[in-house]
Amino acid sequence: MTQQRLDEIIAQQREGLKEIGPDFAPLLDEAHLFLQGGKRLRAQFLVLGYEAVAGSHDRNASTQGAFSAVLDAACALELFHAAALVHDDIIDRSDSRRGRAASHRFFAGVHRERGYRGDADHFGEAAAILLGDLLQSWADETLQRALDALPNRDAALGARQHFNRMRSEVAVGQFLDVLEEQHQAFAEHEVQLERSTRVLVYKSAKYSIQAPILIGAAMAGASPKQLGALADFGLPVGVAFQLRDDLLGVFGNEQVTGKPSGDDLTEGKRTVLVTLAREGLPSGPKRVFDDLHGDPTLNREQIRVLQDTISQTGAKARVETMISGNVGLAREALSEAALDEKAVAALISLAEFAATRDA
Amino acid sequence: MTQQRLDEIIAQQREGLKEIGPDFAPLLDEAHLFLQGGKRLRAQFLVLGYEAVAGSHDRNASTQGAFSAVLDAACALELFHAAALVHDDIIDRSDSRRGRAASHRFFAGVHRERGYRGDADHFGEAAAILLGDLLQSWADETLQRALDALPNRDAALGARQHFNRMRSEVAVGQFLDVLEEQHQAFAEHEVQLERSTRVLVYKSAKYSIQAPILIGAAMAGASPKQLGALADFGLPVGVAFQLRDDLLGVFGNEQVTGKPSGDDLTEGKRTVLVTLAREGLPSGPKRVFDDLHGDPTLNREQIRVLQDTISQTGAKARVETMISGNVGLAREALSEAALDEKAVAALISLAEFAATRDA
Repeated sequence: MTQQRLDEIIAQQREGLKEIGPDFAPLLDEAHLFLQGGKRLRAQFLVLGYEAVAGSHDRNASTQGAFSAVLDAACALELFHAAALVHDDIIDRSDSRRGRAASHRFFAGVHRERGYRGDADHFGEAAAILLGDLLQSWADETLQRALDALPNRDAALGARQHFNRMRSEVAVGQFLDVLEEQHQAFAEHEVQLERSTRVLVYKSAKYSIQAPILIGAAMAGASPKQLGALADFGLPVGVAFQLRDDLLGVFGNEQVTGKPSGDDLTEGKRTVLVTLAREGLPSGPKRVFDDLHGDPTLNREQIRVLQDTISQTGAKARVETMISGNVGLAREALSEAALDEKAVAALISLAEFAATRDA
Repeated sequence: MTQQRLDEIIAQQREGLKEIGPDFAPLLDEAHLFLQGGKRLRAQFLVLGYEAVAGSHDRNASTQGAFSAVLDAACALELFHAAALVHDDIIDRSDSRRGRAASHRFFAGVHRERGYRGDADHFGEAAAILLGDLLQSWADETLQRALDALPNRDAALGARQHFNRMRSEVAVGQFLDVLEEQHQAFAEHEVQLERSTRVLVYKSAKYSIQAPILIGAAMAGASPKQLGALADFGLPVGVAFQLRDDLLGVFGNEQVTGKPSGDDLTEGKRTVLVTLAREGLPSGPKRVFDDLHGDPTLNREQIRVLQDTISQTGAKARVETMISGNVGLAREALSEAALDEKAVAALISLAEFAATRDA
């Protein structure tokens, strides 16, 4: 359903911009292709957040009615996320995403194919910056349409506030993430763990899981108590989600994730996982680890050495334990909440997927 | 008034994000500094668009009442514009803006000062991408607050539509602008003029002038006839505004514009001005012109040669004539419209400023 609605939104935008002529087609084509993929976790959490409060629906029967607004809001999150990823891939210099070339690489390819003059890579980045801006604009427009369709103005305002907060927090969280990579060295363990955790919470946990649920719940006119329970559920699920991402960034299978294996190691991400691994290393091996970590030219063998080191310190197992602990906390948060039973079961099962996925 | 409200908005955001800690201060500091400058043309046109329909106000007396929403909407446009400029400066590789370092250069400077590791320029771009995203988010949030405060829902929806359209069009217009620079050579005259004009209309004329007026007018509940007259006014003013920009990009005084003299020449912008200049050149001088145009290493003397060539072809004078012609068209569009007289006079005087400014 989300896919169909996203396709409709892009088709409408294409139609609305038709009078400008055909030359910007690559921008819309890439938007369309980019939005064919992804796990749609945010959309699903938003819908379930709504249903947890409003009751479960026959979604297919109701895409034309009140549920249509919820579907629009879910698409708004997917559009916003696409925008964030397009920009993030420039920032992280990622070459691929969702098994395809990253957008800036795609546009650089267009430049080369067409034999344009100048710097193909710079053109790729310029076009991807603009694509991200365009997707942000569509996200906002789509959310607005969703909220305008709600009969309950307070519910609309509440949902909007969660969306606004999410947008500011994720930009700041991403900034902190980038900043983290610029420090010459890891900080002392406690400080580093606190900083890495802060990035995890703001860049990912709140953004990817907690905020979508709260936006959906607010749209259904959730009570403060219901919102509180869902917030207490969403945050640990989000933490588990990102800790799993940390593991996949180091140990993930390229064939499944669509991203190069050991990506986080070559990028030198100071994740919670890596911070915990360093804590367990004596000073000699720690220096070797630090020398390799963040070297963009690491070969397969060197990546394997780092992977093994992280496993051997016990950090991998510790993170697995943290993930299950957080899923447990999340489960507990909903155990006595006044929420739709079917939706709660679906939320918990989606949380488990988010925490145990392999891509 | 706009400045004070913008300062309040940034202070509120800073307060709202406080719990994330102090490390992202450079992002908010740069947002604050960036928004100290600028001509505020968009804000002024929006306010006048509103007053043309709603009648002129004692603005100082009414910043707390209905006019407060208009002020918010004006700030939303300035925030959005700041976001667009921050991204645009990365795209155009501009080093300075509003007499200060461009944002990505500012952040690269922070990187160097703090002795961070890695590529300072890449960090600068990453931070500036995120700053632009953050400013876009604040723009949306501020516009939404403005529209939520309007008692007339249809007026709010209408204003929103103009804002949405503006955002999509400017992103596409910027893409076309970037694309234009990638072509190996100028196209045949008629084709080139059409393409350069399209960029001028979508990237600038509609975005900078027409859309702000229409958003303001829609907020006041303008009739279709009033909107039509203001659209017919705004477009030629926007064209004149951008043609003046073309002239300033070639002939502008660095001390006044805050941008290097001949900026558009080193960047190789295929503006309407340059397209008209080439039309008047015999094939030999045209080849020399094309060789120099877009060379980022041009020295002062070479820039002067290009400037003189453009003057001597008569293109400079032609563009001046086009500017006055467009201001004339704009004036005519309002001559019989049912709009507030005082606001119309102010619109015309602001249009003249936009068309004749030296920065």
